[in-house]
Amino acid sequence: MFESILKNVQQKSPLVHCITNYVTVNDVANAILACGASPIMADDINEVEDITSICNATYINIGTLNERTIESMIKAGKKANSLGHPVVLDPVGAGASKFRTDTTFKLLDEIKFSVIRGNISEIKTIYTGNGKTKGVDADIRDRVTEETIDDAVLLAKDMSKRFGSVIVITGAIDIVSDENKAYVIRNGHPVMSKITGTGCMLTGIIAAFVAANRDNITEAVAAAVSLMGLSGELGYLRMKENNAGTSSLRTYLIDEICKIDDSTLKGGMKVEIR
Amino acid sequence: MFESILKNVQQKSPLVHCITNYVTVNDVANAILACGASPIMADDINEVEDITSICNATYINIGTLNERTIESMIKAGKKANSLGHPVVLDPVGAGASKFRTDTTFKLLDEIKFSVIRGNISEIKTIYTGNGKTKGVDADIRDRVTEETIDDAVLLAKDMSKRFGSVIVITGAIDIVSDENKAYVIRNGHPVMSKITGTGCMLTGIIAAFVAANRDNITEAVAAAVSLMGLSGELGYLRMKENNAGTSSLRTYLIDEICKIDDSTLKGGMKVEIR
Amino acid sequence: MFESILKNVQQKSPLVHCITNYVTVNDVANAILACGASPIMADDINEVEDITSICNATYINIGTLNERTIESMIKAGKKANSLGHPVVLDPVGAGASKFRTDTTFKLLDEIKFSVIRGNISEIKTIYTGNGKTKGVDADIRDRVTEETIDDAVLLAKDMSKRFGSVIVITGAIDIVSDENKAYVIRNGHPVMSKITGTGCMLTGIIAAFVAANRDNITEAVAAAVSLMGLSGELGYLRMKENNAGTSSLRTYLIDEICKIDDSTLKGGMKVEIR
Repeated sequence: MFESILKNVQQKSPLVHCITNYVTVNDVANAILACGASPIMADDINEVEDITSICNATYINIGTLNERTIESMIKAGKKANSLGHPVVLDPVGAGASKFRTDTTFKLLDEIKFSVIRGNISEIKTIYTGNGKTKGVDADIRDRVTEETIDDAVLLAKDMSKRFGSVIVITGAIDIVSDENKAYVIRNGHPVMSKITGTGCMLTGIIAAFVAANRDNITEAVAAAVSLMGLSGELGYLRMKENNAGTSSLRTYLIDEICKIDDSTLKGGMKVEIR
Repeated sequence: MFESILKNVQQKSPLVHCITNYVTVNDVANAILACGASPIMADDINEVEDITSICNATYINIGTLNERTIESMIKAGKKANSLGHPVVLDPVGAGASKFRTDTTFKLLDEIKFSVIRGNISEIKTIYTGNGKTKGVDADIRDRVTEETIDDAVLLAKDMSKRFGSVIVITGAIDIVSDENKAYVIRNGHPVMSKITGTGCMLTGIIAAFVAANRDNITEAVAAAVSLMGLSGELGYLRMKENNAGTSSLRTYLIDEICKIDDSTLKGGMKVEIR
Repeated sequence: MFESILKNVQQKSPLVHCITNYVTVNDVANAILACGASPIMADDINEVEDITSICNATYINIGTLNERTIESMIKAGKKANSLGHPVVLDPVGAGASKFRTDTTFKLLDEIKFSVIRGNISEIKTIYTGNGKTKGVDADIRDRVTEETIDDAVLLAKDMSKRFGSVIVITGAIDIVSDENKAYVIRNGHPVMSKITGTGCMLTGIIAAFVAANRDNITEAVAAAVSLMGLSGELGYLRMKENNAGTSSLRTYLIDEICKIDDSTLKGGMKVEIR
């Protein structure tokens, strides 16, 4: 099922147009390159349509959101929709400010997204129409645990139906769901929350994976989520071996994304279907 | 005196709202995470009050200053003041352009800062009302040496009294001063000046330390300054061992921030009171 | 011929004003520091003239171009011209959008550049007045190969004559050309294309090298191009030794820039004159 998803990315090397925040943008670019695709960052309203047109997917991330680029996001997203390109949303901090929450709903109104990825608080903000997010991290009371997986899966399936998007909820346990089936993924390591950008990078990689696996979107997203988690696990081992810290982990994480192949990925995936 | 300052940061994990430059923003975020706190970057005028309200401290840094965000800085700072949150200023390049100098004074007029951290040229620019800065580095003629420590301490104490802020002057020798007492700190290594962002990261960490140690601000700032210097010393040793260069140093520096605990910090602090 | 070019950079430590994109800006700053110079990033129209005035060179890079900073670029470039400072252009993505192509020509109309560096597609876009770029990478059909070197050299010489600039075309084979002679450089490693920012970093280093070697500009640029390629070769070896990936390569690359000296550089340069 997950046989050649990564190989497709490496062989097709899709070009991903990214409108993203200035905090983690470099890591997003390097992560996209590491998995075999190619990024281009462009956010000015005068060029987003041109750029989206030469790309294979469009990635919109609302971290460090500002008024100038909201219109660019909408223009790029609509153009990508009209071209039939996948568009992927990372609603960073939805629920943390009215501005981000309102913008998220505006984007959802104007653009059809293939995939929406957030932590549980961001996803609940979208699902319920309001929410409370602790900054850019999930509220601890929302977190998906073994006891609440089934509720989260139901939510994700229902939300997928409503928006016509694959829904990704990331945290200690990750969920990737379309309206019919959900992958519950247990890759990753808690220390990953000690570096910024793992979510942003993952969503960028998802855009690349979806662009290269158009007939198999839900599985492509699940593979991308596992890839990130598995790379974090391997990066953590290297960090421990070298008695290093979290900045090394960030380097090792991207290193592992670049070194992994389909068979390692398939062997390391901890995934079940619900 | 410095017993549990770092532990307080790690246990309370304060959320720091950062309005900062796009050059070193990723390192600032990762450094804040490494010391046990949590960052959120947000600079749009439509959300800075919301974001500051859910945070425990506000960090304003004028590197890559632009007209759009000055009003955001003022709005965030005033909101933080009204909520009683600590606000920390890094006047990057004050003295290097009229725009940065004027903006620094505007911020000082509108906002009450708990801490102001700069190199000696930036601090002198504020103290004297004008100055000359070599880009973002201190003018060599201004540098604090063994001979000029007492003058710098007097300046810092007087400036602390005037602004009601803890004043931090960083360089080969660091000074952390309130109006009554100054800590002279000799941690650090000259090679740290060969990577960008050590000042920006430090000021972000100071914001986290102050937020978690509200009853003990001057000591919290001194501990943060030592932490950065000590991490640089340890990072330098690892760089030499590995025959590496300055980009590795940048990684090791943040690694050490993440690995250090109160006892190592206390043991490594090179601090005297004047 | 290339004896003391790097030493001049290290001894004069020129200050480089950078107006550049937010994707690779941190790497640009650290690469400029690594080669012995000093960067300052500033893009607001209210300060670019002040900043350029205290610097020794101005570096303009149109990645993540936006309307706000185009006027800043022009103002900074004109000021640098009036002061006789070298100005260096990196037309990232010229040909990928009308906005970037038009802006490139606007900058070329208003500013006299000492050096223009791009990949072959960006350079051809400028040379022919139009072009087609695959995002920020060169179109594969344009690439300089052993068979097409002479054509590329002719183009570079002719373009140098027209713009009065040293022209740099980078790729698997690099060309550095003034109107009379061209250096063909074969340093570097293909894996360098798997990290973002090598071009942006190189152009920043070129600005530093030109600022410190005003009487010997073409050779200074050739030395900078070799330095970057050689650092990539050495970084690649270290990556292989450590069984690491591309994020480590990015660290090693800047490490090597910082560790190299004139004799290693001279010994490692693979350069011929055409």
